[in-house]
Amino acid sequence: MGVRALVLLSGGQDSTTCLAAAIAAHGVENVEALSIDYGQRHGKEVTAAQAIARLLGVEWDVVDLEDVLLSTSPLLSDASLDDVRGIVAEPGAPRRVEQTFVPMRNALFLVVAANWSVAGRCKRIYVGVSEEDYGGYPDCRREFLESFMAMVGFALGEAGPPPILECPLLHLDKAGTVKLMRSLEVAVPRAWEALGLSWSCYEGGERPCGKCHACVLRARGFERAGEFDPALEGIDGG
Amino acid sequence: MGVRALVLLSGGQDSTTCLAAAIAAHGVENVEALSIDYGQRHGKEVTAAQAIARLLGVEWDVVDLEDVLLSTSPLLSDASLDDVRGIVAEPGAPRRVEQTFVPMRNALFLVVAANWSVAGRCKRIYVGVSEEDYGGYPDCRREFLESFMAMVGFALGEAGPPPILECPLLHLDKAGTVKLMRSLEVAVPRAWEALGLSWSCYEGGERPCGKCHACVLRARGFERAGEFDPALEGIDGG
Repeated sequence: MGVRALVLLSGGQDSTTCLAAAIAAHGVENVEALSIDYGQRHGKEVTAAQAIARLLGVEWDVVDLEDVLLSTSPLLSDASLDDVRGIVAEPGAPRRVEQTFVPMRNALFLVVAANWSVAGRCKRIYVGVSEEDYGGYPDCRREFLESFMAMVGFALGEAGPPPILECPLLHLDKAGTVKLMRSLEVAVPRAWEALGLSWSCYEGGERPCGKCHACVLRARGFERAGEFDPALEGIDGG
Repeated sequence: MGVRALVLLSGGQDSTTCLAAAIAAHGVENVEALSIDYGQRHGKEVTAAQAIARLLGVEWDVVDLEDVLLSTSPLLSDASLDDVRGIVAEPGAPRRVEQTFVPMRNALFLVVAANWSVAGRCKRIYVGVSEEDYGGYPDCRREFLESFMAMVGFALGEAGPPPILECPLLHLDKAGTVKLMRSLEVAVPRAWEALGLSWSCYEGGERPCGKCHACVLRARGFERAGEFDPALEGIDGG
C-alpha cells in the first residue's frame, strides 16, 4: 500500500492547498482525492474539486452522502445567506459556533476516509482544516482531530492500525495558506493554477459573491499575503 | 425536544430488543427508529426493521449509505459466507476481529445519529451493541463507545450538548438479551412478536440458514434462556 495518501478535497482553497501539499510530500502517483457530496447548497464545489484533481493529475472519487446530514446551516439548506454575509470573527474574539457549521460533518467525512484506509486505499488521510481561521468550527480544532483519531483506534482495535492523519494547514491562517501554496509551486508546478479553479464562495453564482464569510476570509488572506487571487482573474480587473 | 429517543434499528435481534427497551423507558410516542442501508448483502434486515417499527408503532426512517463503506466483509460484498459459518468465539478466547467486521460501520451510524440529534430529532441515541457476544467487533466495546462520545463532545463544542448514548444490551449475552425482551412484554405488549420479525441471519434466504455466526449465536441464546425463537415458528417444528 505504501504511502498512498487520501486527500479530502472539497474544492475550496484550503483543501486544494492541502492536496498540493500531499502531492509535494508523496508524489502525484501516491495521492488520491476524495470529494463528498453531502447535499451542498450548490454543486460548484464538487465540480471544482474534480477539475482540480484532473489538473494536478491525481485520481479522484466522489461519495454520495446526500440526504444524510440534517442541519439548518445555509450551506446545506436553501435558507438565506444574508445573515452570514461578511461576518468574520476577529482573532481573539470569544469563541462561538458559526451559523454555517454543519454538526458532525467533518466527523462523517473522516469516518468514510478511515474506512477507505482500512480497506487498503490509503495509509494517510490529509484534511485541510485550520484552527486559525475556523475557530468557530469546533470540528476544525486540534482537540477534535486528536479525539477523533483516538476513537478510530478503539473502533478498529485489532483490525488496525488506524491511518495517519495529516493536517498541514492546521496552524495557518488564510494568508499563511496562500503563502504555502506559492511555496509549493516548485514541487507542484500547476498548484497556483489549481488555486484559480478552487471555489470558496457559499453561493453558487457565476463568480464569487465577494460578500459571504468565505469570500471575505479568502480575500483578506490573499491581500495579507500580497498576492492576487487567481480565481478572480478576469474579474474585478484581475 | 423532551426525551425523544432515536434507536438505531438494524432489524436484528439486538436492535429490536433495544427498541423495545427504549419504548419501555420513554413511551412509544417518544421513540423513533432509524435504519441505515449501507449496501448490505441482502435487504432482509431493512425490510424487517420497517416491519418491526410498524408493529411497535414507532416512526421509522431509513438513510441511504450505499456505496460508502468499503470492506471485504461478506456482510457487504458478494463474497462467500462459507468461511464464517458456525464460527463462534468461546468466552475467554483470545480477542480477534471477526471476518464479518465492517471497519468504521458503527462509527458511521453513530455520526449520523449524532447529527440528527443536534438537528433536534432526539436527545438520546439507543444502540443495541453488546460487548459480551461481540468481543470480536471492536466497535461494540465500551471503550469505543466512550471515546466516540468524547469525540462528539469536541466535534460539537459550543454547539453541544452532545446526545446521551444508551446501550441497554452492553453487558448482556444473547441469553440475557432474550430474557430482557421477555421482561419487556409487560410494558411493550408486542415486543415478543417483534422479535419474531427480526432477522439476524447473514444470508438473505427464505428462512434463517441456521449455520452462520449470527444464527448460531442467536440459537444458543434462546436455548440458554429456555425460550423458543419466535422467528422460527412454523420452521423446525416450532
